[in-house]
Amino acid sequence: MRNISILGSTGSIGTQTLDVIRRHKDKFKAIGLAAFGSDRDIDLIVEQIKEFKPKIVAMYSEEGAEKLKKILAHDQIGHSPNIVLSAGLKGLIDVSTFKETDQVVTAVVGSVGLIPTLEAIKHKKDIALANKETLVCAGELVMKEIKKHDVALMPIDSEHSAIFQSLQGNRRKDLSKIIVTCSGGPFRDESIWPAEKIQEATREHALKHPTWNMGGKITIDSASLMNKGLEVIEAHHLYNVPYRQIKVVVHPESIIHSMVEYRDGSIIAQLGVHDMRLPIQYALSWPSRLVSGEYGFLDLIKTKKLTFFEPDFIRFPCLQYAYTAGELGGTMPAVMNAANEVAVVEYFLQNKIKFGDIPKAINHTMNSHGEAYKKGPALEDILKADEWAREHTRSVLDVVIADKSWKNVQ
Amino acid sequence: MRNISILGSTGSIGTQTLDVIRRHKDKFKAIGLAAFGSDRDIDLIVEQIKEFKPKIVAMYSEEGAEKLKKILAHDQIGHSPNIVLSAGLKGLIDVSTFKETDQVVTAVVGSVGLIPTLEAIKHKKDIALANKETLVCAGELVMKEIKKHDVALMPIDSEHSAIFQSLQGNRRKDLSKIIVTCSGGPFRDESIWPAEKIQEATREHALKHPTWNMGGKITIDSASLMNKGLEVIEAHHLYNVPYRQIKVVVHPESIIHSMVEYRDGSIIAQLGVHDMRLPIQYALSWPSRLVSGEYGFLDLIKTKKLTFFEPDFIRFPCLQYAYTAGELGGTMPAVMNAANEVAVVEYFLQNKIKFGDIPKAINHTMNSHGEAYKKGPALEDILKADEWAREHTRSVLDVVIADKSWKNVQ
Repeated sequence: MRNISILGSTGSIGTQTLDVIRRHKDKFKAIGLAAFGSDRDIDLIVEQIKEFKPKIVAMYSEEGAEKLKKILAHDQIGHSPNIVLSAGLKGLIDVSTFKETDQVVTAVVGSVGLIPTLEAIKHKKDIALANKETLVCAGELVMKEIKKHDVALMPIDSEHSAIFQSLQGNRRKDLSKIIVTCSGGPFRDESIWPAEKIQEATREHALKHPTWNMGGKITIDSASLMNKGLEVIEAHHLYNVPYRQIKVVVHPESIIHSMVEYRDGSIIAQLGVHDMRLPIQYALSWPSRLVSGEYGFLDLIKTKKLTFFEPDFIRFPCLQYAYTAGELGGTMPAVMNAANEVAVVEYFLQNKIKFGDIPKAINHTMNSHGEAYKKGPALEDILKADEWAREHTRSVLDVVIADKSWKNVQ
Repeated sequence: MRNISILGSTGSIGTQTLDVIRRHKDKFKAIGLAAFGSDRDIDLIVEQIKEFKPKIVAMYSEEGAEKLKKILAHDQIGHSPNIVLSAGLKGLIDVSTFKETDQVVTAVVGSVGLIPTLEAIKHKKDIALANKETLVCAGELVMKEIKKHDVALMPIDSEHSAIFQSLQGNRRKDLSKIIVTCSGGPFRDESIWPAEKIQEATREHALKHPTWNMGGKITIDSASLMNKGLEVIEAHHLYNVPYRQIKVVVHPESIIHSMVEYRDGSIIAQLGVHDMRLPIQYALSWPSRLVSGEYGFLDLIKTKKLTFFEPDFIRFPCLQYAYTAGELGGTMPAVMNAANEVAVVEYFLQNKIKFGDIPKAINHTMNSHGEAYKKGPALEDILKADEWAREHTRSVLDVVIADKSWKNVQ
């Protein structure tokens, strides 16, 4: 029996992780659950407590923790009163480092996942990682701790899971290239979306993802290819591969989830349906594989065809910025990530700026980071750079909005 | 240094094996060479002796051996006189069991490869197998010996190499399906080649293979899908997988060389260029991979698209016969293989019969094998069944040719 703690149990990855656990009750136990603490979170986590009977639960918001405490005190859920309740960042850490936990699924969004994950690693918990910021912002730091404490870091992202699967049974020194596939997003077709038109694209244009529905932020990142850029940085850290050996190939059908090319020229690829339960399950069951439901099986005959294109770094400058930030390393990836998050979440998704303003804001913030840029940063350096980048991006975009132009941005 | 003996060093696989050895002289040595012994073989093997300085050489034909002996006696090739010369089936066995040999590449065509391969296994030599008959006709027997003597059997065929590569790092019990890809051959497109038209197809139609040039027999087998059927039988033996778990998918681009589906639904595939040096090199270097030349690398962007179709068992009955013969096991696969070889090589390639007569001849021979059919056959049973099937097929096809019809075939 493997005891799993889930940071972000009420989100998309969290609930799918619980579905995997539900299907394999003989193998896995949801020992710890944590969520942000909104009213929706509380409703859902009460259901989860009833079903999975975790030993520890945390709400990130103190208010949410109070509400949940009252519900549990009144024993409204018919569960043992021995459940440990915790709150705040401390609560997330309590869940991720809980004594009986074997593996932590980090499925919270944003940099809030970083500290509880690092703490879990220090407590020798294996990690199943769905949180992008952990590796994008603090990849050097996190991988050092992973190595030091000798824990397994399993990717949950379908691309990184595919790379991991394609590396099995091969020697790292034989690897010649990682090929990360990319759907291309809604602006893929240049005949419909030439460079100038992408500049002017709105929230509504960008939210039309051709292959599947995801949350707002990640859908915009898929449209700008920033999502792929973040994955390139993650792949660099996860597999210790130089950026020049990580290639992106546009593959609109998204059936091949990624590939590894070896020095003999042979390419190993992992293919599958679009169902996050598969990489989640693999991250929990590795090196075994477990059965999945009918939903897990791909029919290549029905798929019919797979196509491949070169990514367009001109129309999608965010992909280039990610490579640049990755190559520079240090605090730069955190700065790029923060600038992107602010531009997308606080401005573009609020209909305050156009699509073309996102890369411009990122570029400006990266270029302004100069003096504060730091190699080999400690955690506090990363958090400081993140904070600075957010402020800088806001100040720049506020000028752009006021002027309706970039001409007064220094 | 790994010492390699090559049975069939002057053929297509043999010369490509030597090219791999030439490119990795620090890793491999061609210690033994064997060929049939035609004048062309002798010219080529003299060159090979000069370049690779093997310690043992054999010619299958006694006449060829005599000729080579004279050339060596006159020291026309400037090579050490210590080279061991041998002839006949004994010669092939001498090469395959040569004391210093670590691995035998079985690249001769036809059932002549069977006995030297079995002898090599008994002498604890690893095998790299390009000879189809070894597993198709004597799969049960050969795999028993492989297990008993604990040697490695590496496939050279690109499909089986792809399966082998896709199985690395996974547990056999997690395997759910082997997916063998198939180019579909020149008669793939039903709108151009409906069932009736395939029946009437000639040697010239069938020799137009859409993807690459191969020898006559294998090209016809690719057109009838018998080649794929033989590969299904080989995969069954190599990977100990029931026939119901081996699927054929038509994939005209032949970029994905084959796939393995696991019980979680994940599919691992191996992709690459069409160059036999790659699976040959992998068979020699496994579990490592070695660098290959520029010829080894695939550009998926240039490939552009991969397509997949269901195989058509009605238009290509040979594929069904192979599954049937495989399921029956015993002497039946040898009977089917012999009937096919006679029908293709002695009749169809001589322009004596039409394409549709090939499956009819195979079907008739398989149906007539009834009483002589044997489960768990010994080597002599297999060779006897092979001989019987050849005679039977000839007698049937001679009637068809005389009558210009199947109506008098009992």
